[in-house]
Amino acid sequence: MNSNSQIPTFKGIITPMITPMLNEDELDLKGLEKLINHIIAGGVHGVFILGTTGESTSLPYPMRHRLIEETCAMVNKRVPVLVGITDTAVSESLRLADTAEQCCASALVAAPPYYFNLGQPELIEYYEYLADRISLPMFLYNMPSHTKINIEPETVKKLSEHTNIIGLKDSSGNTAYFNKLLYRMRDNKDFSFFVGPEEITAETVLLGGSGGVNGGSNMFPKLYVKLYEAAVAGDIEKVKQLHSVVMEISSEIYNLGRFGSSYLKGLKCALGLLGICNDYMSAPLHRFKKEEKDRLALNLQNIQNKLS
Amino acid sequence: MNSNSQIPTFKGIITPMITPMLNEDELDLKGLEKLINHIIAGGVHGVFILGTTGESTSLPYPMRHRLIEETCAMVNKRVPVLVGITDTAVSESLRLADTAEQCCASALVAAPPYYFNLGQPELIEYYEYLADRISLPMFLYNMPSHTKINIEPETVKKLSEHTNIIGLKDSSGNTAYFNKLLYRMRDNKDFSFFVGPEEITAETVLLGGSGGVNGGSNMFPKLYVKLYEAAVAGDIEKVKQLHSVVMEISSEIYNLGRFGSSYLKGLKCALGLLGICNDYMSAPLHRFKKEEKDRLALNLQNIQNKLS
Amino acid sequence: MNSNSQIPTFKGIITPMITPMLNEDELDLKGLEKLINHIIAGGVHGVFILGTTGESTSLPYPMRHRLIEETCAMVNKRVPVLVGITDTAVSESLRLADTAEQCCASALVAAPPYYFNLGQPELIEYYEYLADRISLPMFLYNMPSHTKINIEPETVKKLSEHTNIIGLKDSSGNTAYFNKLLYRMRDNKDFSFFVGPEEITAETVLLGGSGGVNGGSNMFPKLYVKLYEAAVAGDIEKVKQLHSVVMEISSEIYNLGRFGSSYLKGLKCALGLLGICNDYMSAPLHRFKKEEKDRLALNLQNIQNKLS
Amino acid sequence: MNSNSQIPTFKGIITPMITPMLNEDELDLKGLEKLINHIIAGGVHGVFILGTTGESTSLPYPMRHRLIEETCAMVNKRVPVLVGITDTAVSESLRLADTAEQCCASALVAAPPYYFNLGQPELIEYYEYLADRISLPMFLYNMPSHTKINIEPETVKKLSEHTNIIGLKDSSGNTAYFNKLLYRMRDNKDFSFFVGPEEITAETVLLGGSGGVNGGSNMFPKLYVKLYEAAVAGDIEKVKQLHSVVMEISSEIYNLGRFGSSYLKGLKCALGLLGICNDYMSAPLHRFKKEEKDRLALNLQNIQNKLS
Repeated sequence: MNSNSQIPTFKGIITPMITPMLNEDELDLKGLEKLINHIIAGGVHGVFILGTTGESTSLPYPMRHRLIEETCAMVNKRVPVLVGITDTAVSESLRLADTAEQCCASALVAAPPYYFNLGQPELIEYYEYLADRISLPMFLYNMPSHTKINIEPETVKKLSEHTNIIGLKDSSGNTAYFNKLLYRMRDNKDFSFFVGPEEITAETVLLGGSGGVNGGSNMFPKLYVKLYEAAVAGDIEKVKQLHSVVMEISSEIYNLGRFGSSYLKGLKCALGLLGICNDYMSAPLHRFKKEEKDRLALNLQNIQNKLS
Repeated sequence: MNSNSQIPTFKGIITPMITPMLNEDELDLKGLEKLINHIIAGGVHGVFILGTTGESTSLPYPMRHRLIEETCAMVNKRVPVLVGITDTAVSESLRLADTAEQCCASALVAAPPYYFNLGQPELIEYYEYLADRISLPMFLYNMPSHTKINIEPETVKKLSEHTNIIGLKDSSGNTAYFNKLLYRMRDNKDFSFFVGPEEITAETVLLGGSGGVNGGSNMFPKLYVKLYEAAVAGDIEKVKQLHSVVMEISSEIYNLGRFGSSYLKGLKCALGLLGICNDYMSAPLHRFKKEEKDRLALNLQNIQNKLS
Repeated sequence: MNSNSQIPTFKGIITPMITPMLNEDELDLKGLEKLINHIIAGGVHGVFILGTTGESTSLPYPMRHRLIEETCAMVNKRVPVLVGITDTAVSESLRLADTAEQCCASALVAAPPYYFNLGQPELIEYYEYLADRISLPMFLYNMPSHTKINIEPETVKKLSEHTNIIGLKDSSGNTAYFNKLLYRMRDNKDFSFFVGPEEITAETVLLGGSGGVNGGSNMFPKLYVKLYEAAVAGDIEKVKQLHSVVMEISSEIYNLGRFGSSYLKGLKCALGLLGICNDYMSAPLHRFKKEEKDRLALNLQNIQNKLS
Repeated sequence: MNSNSQIPTFKGIITPMITPMLNEDELDLKGLEKLINHIIAGGVHGVFILGTTGESTSLPYPMRHRLIEETCAMVNKRVPVLVGITDTAVSESLRLADTAEQCCASALVAAPPYYFNLGQPELIEYYEYLADRISLPMFLYNMPSHTKINIEPETVKKLSEHTNIIGLKDSSGNTAYFNKLLYRMRDNKDFSFFVGPEEITAETVLLGGSGGVNGGSNMFPKLYVKLYEAAVAGDIEKVKQLHSVVMEISSEIYNLGRFGSSYLKGLKCALGLLGICNDYMSAPLHRFKKEEKDRLALNLQNIQNKLS
């Protein structure tokens, strides 16, 4: 984060934080603090709360606001805090943005509203409406599997002209799309491009991406930071070696349940097993039962042995 | 509504009410009252607030709660009030359900949570969690184009065993699916099956469906009630004649914009033109501009002439 | 079929014939003759070969041409023969059309080419190219689940202006779409609209559709013909009673396997059990194994008991 | 290609050849020879005919067989020839495979059958059926946007046990999926993994992929070969520079039309402008009209200037 400029630039590993909870209505505050300190100690370049990994859309609104306050206080400016404000109701997005601003968060992140099926012109109009009403800089968040709409390169180009829109996080997994974006925006060096899926952080950083918003850095922040640094340095051999550990995590931790929620369930279960925080998940998801938990514990041990 | 039984049965035309608004944060209360009286005067069998047609997911939460209170008070038990509690956060659904219960609403309606991609077993678990925690009876709401999941017939069958789950509204437009549901549930006479798209109300009622939750009944409640009655009576000729007016509405009112939102924009614009309420739409949708409005005014006049 | 006019009009029950085979390369000619006679004896208004139910796209081309010749000869003008010419290669569609014409078939049926992802203008251009080069009248065939494209109402309207394009078969199951089509084309009384899924034949004929292209009429032609006649006569009680048998067939015969192919596997298995023809299926599908076959035999017996 | 072993291993840039045609039924044989010599002179590691870029599914079957014969004769073993046998009818796939074997092609490539909607077990059964009946080694071809099915990593793992199945070409553009595949198959060093979209060749080769099957190498084979070599050598700076030209081609040549076919239309148009072969396209696609052609000519000139 560039302290000499009014608009910060972002890069590196930003942890999309899981949300530690005791139950449907209460945060696990001890777990939250432990998690934040663990992540920052690992050297990440920022934290991102209230994203998909944070189960944002499942949380009660008072908890979302509380999470912003607590996280900003606990992080205490050691790293930038990005706050997800994705919502189907723009008024609720704006309320979350207000809290973020009051708590001195660094930036906002907003995926398209995900109930109605929008066209690209409607999407542009929406983002401009939102961007006009916020003070913090904002990232677009492309997540077509969940929002039913892809933010097309032309749309990104158009929106990048808005002062408050400073970057994009792409969770599509489609690097053909991502590379088209990078090319199309090649003359706008201030716009940041992050990828979500950690399986592609290595390659996208090698080719010019700004970094990764990678769930695995909740567990093993150092690993992802080292991967990022190796990629920036162009040290291919090191990249390959670290990438292979990331792929093992993807295969052995995120792939144990059925349905699209395996990643999230596996990650939260692992954080529970690592003693960092409670593994409670908010409806409509539910934590792993004993069988998956036992398998995951074994797999996790193997990975820890490699990393130590 | 059967006053002799604790579990009401529902049938007929239920109006999925648009939400009259002055701006992003304020209800158009005069419009709301006018609309409610207009609908009830037209003989509809119930009203449904906070559905897709009501832009529920776009509204600030305080407005959603207020809308429940005002509507229940204004309707004043003249017809049953159904309240949409669809949300990605189950805690917010439950809060809406509480308000509905306190205001003596008749039933709840819940579509699947629409952010995460769920499997059918996760969906069953979700609906059971919800149904265990509410007091009012609840309808399932199938809306795959918006929620990314179809509530499979087996899932409906399983959920129908829960005391609090009393029916389903299907907005898929797929009557092959709807007829499979009706057949599969043929021994459960207390379970209600409504369709959303008014283009298929005639045929589904003819073959045993409970009725229609049809947006057009905001404008022309009598037309839809007559159509329902003709279908129940098996008066095919009358059904065909009324159905053809409904199709004209579909073609000339709902089909003027681009994108999936044409229906909603057209309907709200028409209600404004009819002098019933404000045509403000909440983000991410926006009301028609002059060009579409002028065309719609002409089409609307033609339809009114036929109906008078 | 109107013998006084050059362009026939079609209506009623048209059987989408399964293709009786001995193995990957040989037709079951005895089975084919038995099936044709069985169907015609049941009173159907036409047969349709080389459709989805006929596994057209799985068959070797020489077999497709042979099937046209044999079927036309065996039917011997007792009822109209419709021939599917759907193909990704327009040249192969035209060759099939030539054979159909030489064998005095009555009409052609073509779904959109199903490999490339086309836009509606490309689809119009394609159908016009095809229609310009054939002599027999042609039906459009809407099958979005298999072809990845919906033939939009505007596209149908435009294509209906071509002399050789005389109707549409819709297998989408979406009667909201179907009713929009009927309404949009209400002034073109010569254009025919058939539905594929037998679960919706009753209602679509009640509201003005031309008939059904229903797989079940391979097994029980009389049932479907009676259902059609009752719907045309507006005899709702009889329609309901017959529709409920059709729904039992849908539930108990077409729903025993996994995956999208249950319908086709169940239907062909039943025809084998009824002693009409071989139940061999061409790759990539395969006939039911003993377990499903035994269950199906039981269900089939129950249905036969009701029908006798 | 390893001449010491019976099973060749493949790597590098394989050109998915467009099919030069004079009209719907005739190959442009002069153009074909010119194209082949141009490509081989550029140093590519193999050619692949009858793929998506070759409009395979649009071509008459006699032309497909003729293309195999002519190409194998013209290439005359200078580089390996891979032959697409993708078809909905397995018998036609086998006939193409026979011709390929007789012409001494090097390998076959087969996407899933693309009409019926299959489950993964049906897909495994299909590929095993096919692989049992061919003599040449075969690549799986993942193309979910066109075939409606993703070949899941577990399916690839299972199929890789078949002697005749030696690799996979992935055209999904989803490198998260691709990296999961590479990791899952990390112990099978003989299995090859190619990507289709040239926008991701650089990164996938950097991380261990076998190479790219890139349409652009029809035009500029040397560029893609150099890119591959730089990636294998781990020369990041050179990779970035060459990758940026590839992205310019993607942006300025493949992006001028509407619909999914822009890539194919742009590529064939460019080959016509380069004087290599006729730009005729088979239905349902059609060559660019003057407007797009003029724009493309300008863009092409800019790229040629950079490359010379």
